[in-house]
Amino acid sequence: MKIITNNAVVLSSGGLDSTTVMAMAKDQKYTIFSLSFDYGQRHRFELEAARKVAHRLGAAQHLIFPMDMSVIGGSALTSDMVVPKGRDNDRMAHGIPVTYVPARNTIFLSIALAWAEVVQASHIFIGVNAVDYSGYPDCRPEYIAAFEAMASLATKAAVEGTLSVKIHAPLIQMTKAQIIRTGMDLGVDYSLTHSCYDPSPEGKACGQCDSCLLRRKGFLDASVPDPTIYA
Amino acid sequence: MKIITNNAVVLSSGGLDSTTVMAMAKDQKYTIFSLSFDYGQRHRFELEAARKVAHRLGAAQHLIFPMDMSVIGGSALTSDMVVPKGRDNDRMAHGIPVTYVPARNTIFLSIALAWAEVVQASHIFIGVNAVDYSGYPDCRPEYIAAFEAMASLATKAAVEGTLSVKIHAPLIQMTKAQIIRTGMDLGVDYSLTHSCYDPSPEGKACGQCDSCLLRRKGFLDASVPDPTIYA
Repeated sequence: MKIITNNAVVLSSGGLDSTTVMAMAKDQKYTIFSLSFDYGQRHRFELEAARKVAHRLGAAQHLIFPMDMSVIGGSALTSDMVVPKGRDNDRMAHGIPVTYVPARNTIFLSIALAWAEVVQASHIFIGVNAVDYSGYPDCRPEYIAAFEAMASLATKAAVEGTLSVKIHAPLIQMTKAQIIRTGMDLGVDYSLTHSCYDPSPEGKACGQCDSCLLRRKGFLDASVPDPTIYA
Repeated sequence: MKIITNNAVVLSSGGLDSTTVMAMAKDQKYTIFSLSFDYGQRHRFELEAARKVAHRLGAAQHLIFPMDMSVIGGSALTSDMVVPKGRDNDRMAHGIPVTYVPARNTIFLSIALAWAEVVQASHIFIGVNAVDYSGYPDCRPEYIAAFEAMASLATKAAVEGTLSVKIHAPLIQMTKAQIIRTGMDLGVDYSLTHSCYDPSPEGKACGQCDSCLLRRKGFLDASVPDPTIYA
């Protein structure tokens, strides 16, 4: 017999986008299973942020999945490549930045799919966004649809017909300002969140990487005070 | 410009199936990038077997990707659940065994996809088999096709049109005996390989788990001497 649960695995980086997604899932009465990855990223402060966010939003469980993506290389976020800094409209408008991590969302969603089967979650929420990150292939609606189609054939639960998984990407067509306004309406405390790709040893945001620039501009555009502590 | 390379990421467990696949890829003149997972499995002897196999078959690189799937649970292979033993035709013929690891092939293929992008591999080889493991959802041809479709949308290389990845599952319709005969024709030394789900501390095969039973029967059916050392 097919079960549809309101359990939802929510991918959480402790950043602005995924925290907003978790608040949306909570608002829609899903039971939240928060999933973060300790993947050898430079910006490890996000793990502490993710823990705080899961606690504040009342997640039923918060799981940190350990894996070392740095062995694969190919990204400034998991290797010694330099994280680009400063306003460079050309860099952000064109092409895929060096902070791209190969197949990252595919790997994250696959692990979310495994956990969804174990905790009987019919839903996976992911904070991908096709507007700000137009260069990232795995942030597009057609990619999300293809992953969902694959997932419908991948698990024991799917094949036995007991549980299928829907992938929710509610931010996919929103601007950063729209995301922030949505979160503010839901009472999100963005001071808990962390976005910087290259924070100081004390966890202060650099204010100069692409992620900081997008975040800062989002608060400006949304006319919301930016609670970020910059170095 | 689209590049088609003859670099191939080959998923290797150090077992009979994946070793045969690697020998087939070598025979077809692919440059082999062997990928194994240290995922918290009970049968960690397979990691040493995978290393030996990659060396013997002349892999260009052998990567062990560390991640702890035991945090997710749901399988006898990564938790304290008991690995079933003894001949039980009912267990092997019907349903999905407790040794099923949730979404394992999806996770493995996702990481293979990431590495394929980094090493510019146009090919991924996986030793899934729909005959012996009819209960495993992620061993079926329709699953492999869906993964390949998703992968064509997932990576920077795919989106920029420079590199697409084909998933090869050459064993998918073969019996264990056919697999062994294919490997013997290619000179595979099966004494290097390891299949047992629950080996002794010295790495001897238990002879009783599903994987041992299938392997033993395969050698019998193929009329090939079984080089496995049983406890």
